[in-house]
Amino acid sequence: MAKLSRRRFLTETSAAIATAPFISTSATRARAQESRKLGFAICGLGRLSESQIAPALARTRHCRLAGLVTGTPAKAEAYMAKYGVPAGSVYSYDTMHRMADDPGIDVVYVATPNALHAEHATRAAAAGKHVFCEKPLEVSVERCRQMIDACKDAGRLLGTAYRCQYDPHHLECIRLVREQVFGAPFIIEAGFGIDVGGPDQWRLKRDLAGGGALMDVGIYALQATRYLTGEEPVVVSALETKTDPAKFAEVDESMVWTTRFPGGVVAHCSTSYKAGGIQNMRVNAERGWFELDPAFFYNGNHGRRSDGQEIRFPEIDLFAAEMDDFAQCILEGRPSKVPGEEGLRDVRIMQAIYESARTGAAVPLA
Amino acid sequence: MAKLSRRRFLTETSAAIATAPFISTSATRARAQESRKLGFAICGLGRLSESQIAPALARTRHCRLAGLVTGTPAKAEAYMAKYGVPAGSVYSYDTMHRMADDPGIDVVYVATPNALHAEHATRAAAAGKHVFCEKPLEVSVERCRQMIDACKDAGRLLGTAYRCQYDPHHLECIRLVREQVFGAPFIIEAGFGIDVGGPDQWRLKRDLAGGGALMDVGIYALQATRYLTGEEPVVVSALETKTDPAKFAEVDESMVWTTRFPGGVVAHCSTSYKAGGIQNMRVNAERGWFELDPAFFYNGNHGRRSDGQEIRFPEIDLFAAEMDDFAQCILEGRPSKVPGEEGLRDVRIMQAIYESARTGAAVPLA
Repeated sequence: MAKLSRRRFLTETSAAIATAPFISTSATRARAQESRKLGFAICGLGRLSESQIAPALARTRHCRLAGLVTGTPAKAEAYMAKYGVPAGSVYSYDTMHRMADDPGIDVVYVATPNALHAEHATRAAAAGKHVFCEKPLEVSVERCRQMIDACKDAGRLLGTAYRCQYDPHHLECIRLVREQVFGAPFIIEAGFGIDVGGPDQWRLKRDLAGGGALMDVGIYALQATRYLTGEEPVVVSALETKTDPAKFAEVDESMVWTTRFPGGVVAHCSTSYKAGGIQNMRVNAERGWFELDPAFFYNGNHGRRSDGQEIRFPEIDLFAAEMDDFAQCILEGRPSKVPGEEGLRDVRIMQAIYESARTGAAVPLA
Repeated sequence: MAKLSRRRFLTETSAAIATAPFISTSATRARAQESRKLGFAICGLGRLSESQIAPALARTRHCRLAGLVTGTPAKAEAYMAKYGVPAGSVYSYDTMHRMADDPGIDVVYVATPNALHAEHATRAAAAGKHVFCEKPLEVSVERCRQMIDACKDAGRLLGTAYRCQYDPHHLECIRLVREQVFGAPFIIEAGFGIDVGGPDQWRLKRDLAGGGALMDVGIYALQATRYLTGEEPVVVSALETKTDPAKFAEVDESMVWTTRFPGGVVAHCSTSYKAGGIQNMRVNAERGWFELDPAFFYNGNHGRRSDGQEIRFPEIDLFAAEMDDFAQCILEGRPSKVPGEEGLRDVRIMQAIYESARTGAAVPLA
């Protein structure tokens, strides 16, 4: 009961701050940061929410699980029991608008199938909530734009859940490139593949997923080439292949693609839904190289450098890190480093990758 | 002196057999195989000849160093002293035709700059010698064809020095694909890069080398994708980049390319003259993966499989292995598995890679 009271106290504090203008003074920002945790509602109670997002929320410094959105009320029960989510903060997709009256919820973490992100993000923003959204941001540039506009119109932040941008191993690789520790990079390799599992899941359905391996895990490799170079690619060329055309009738199973960046880096990437083991990121530079392998896991990522040094940092919860940063951006009134625009850029390039795979021609991105 | 006599004896035996028709009976074949070693003349006394080919000849079962061709007589002296090559079997490029009267020489190993291979191979064939030629076979398809025709017209074998086709590690990888130990492959990755060294060498001059990193070391990655799949690629797409345009003014410094194979495999490859560390070969298959890293070194290649098994065999001298096999092909009257046509195929694909890098468009190879 003491716990519940504390939560109620925090909820009420949170409500008072959430109604304040988004850009607050530094004094109130500092106070806010000390005194409260932002309430997150998880929208979509699939495997990721259960195994990663909800447990991570309990490990954050600035967030707490304050609500749920699900089309299957039975799914909510386990969360209510385990995390003490009040029954009044459990919503269906159709009742999300009522969140406007739920001051305990500051942020909606959208973790529904890709092609539903715009709809759910738009509803959350309309209810006055900030939106943190799983990658890919959506399945088309137009829908990404719609989400971005909806959040902007509502004066709310939109963040894309690019957890690797919070992984110390990736941050170290970015530093190695920026400081040219091994000189200028020239070839970057990155790949991420998983065994997607059984045939009965939304990830294999085009109308819900928008695409297959590329949209789901290849996006990590694409993101990596962009944040490593700090540039936008100017042309992309791709090849697709399938070993199981029946299972992967609607979405891509395996892809390779190459991109050129303005500074001269060329990148080649791969992705697959067929098997794991494709999980590396490597930068070849003038005077050496460095790599992460595995690079894109929830944990256990580590790497090595051509000078014999290891790239290994203490484990952190990447989901907690990205949610804490998003909460701090809200509390401090500063932009996120993974805004909706960042999610849109990857979706735009992925559409070009699909176009190249379909036409056989290189697709300019300028 | 006993040693010299033995060599003279072998030379004379060799001469008797060399004048026999190329296709010999199995009885004479068996006799020949037991009684003699084929005499190899090394044509071009650069670093490779000094550090690899000549020492390897001493480790063969079926070959011996019997002659030299060089434009710099002083270079021959060390070989004469170290390997006992008789002064009468040292030729210049202009006197190669006199080899016709040197029965101790059966094979000319052409190790001159790429763009001189056709000229030297043609002279060797005209002198009645079999030709074993360094990769790339030549710098254009036309010149490859010229060499192939010259050897065919002279009734002599032409082999391409693809040492990795004799590396037990590569042979094991081929077996793993053929027997589908991990199911059907779908993405193959291969790359080979080296630091080419100082600016004053023929490898950086277009008229001698024909190309840069791709022609010299990228060819190993290209070869690998072909012998792993056992197929010919149907389309190629490539991107080139340079960190040092002054040093690499005439030839390619770094390249990535992707190819599609008829059976569905897509491959992505990389090469560079800028730095080492790009040296792997990996097959991603339906139920697992396997890789060699390093894959393309003179020695020390080894790898691992997704089931935890190592791919590691006792070291052999790859140059000795390929020369012994070529000698046995001659002695047994059977074709080489690395004939001139195999060298030509890679040159043709490399020209398409250059074309794609130049035009930005995918180049069909059908």
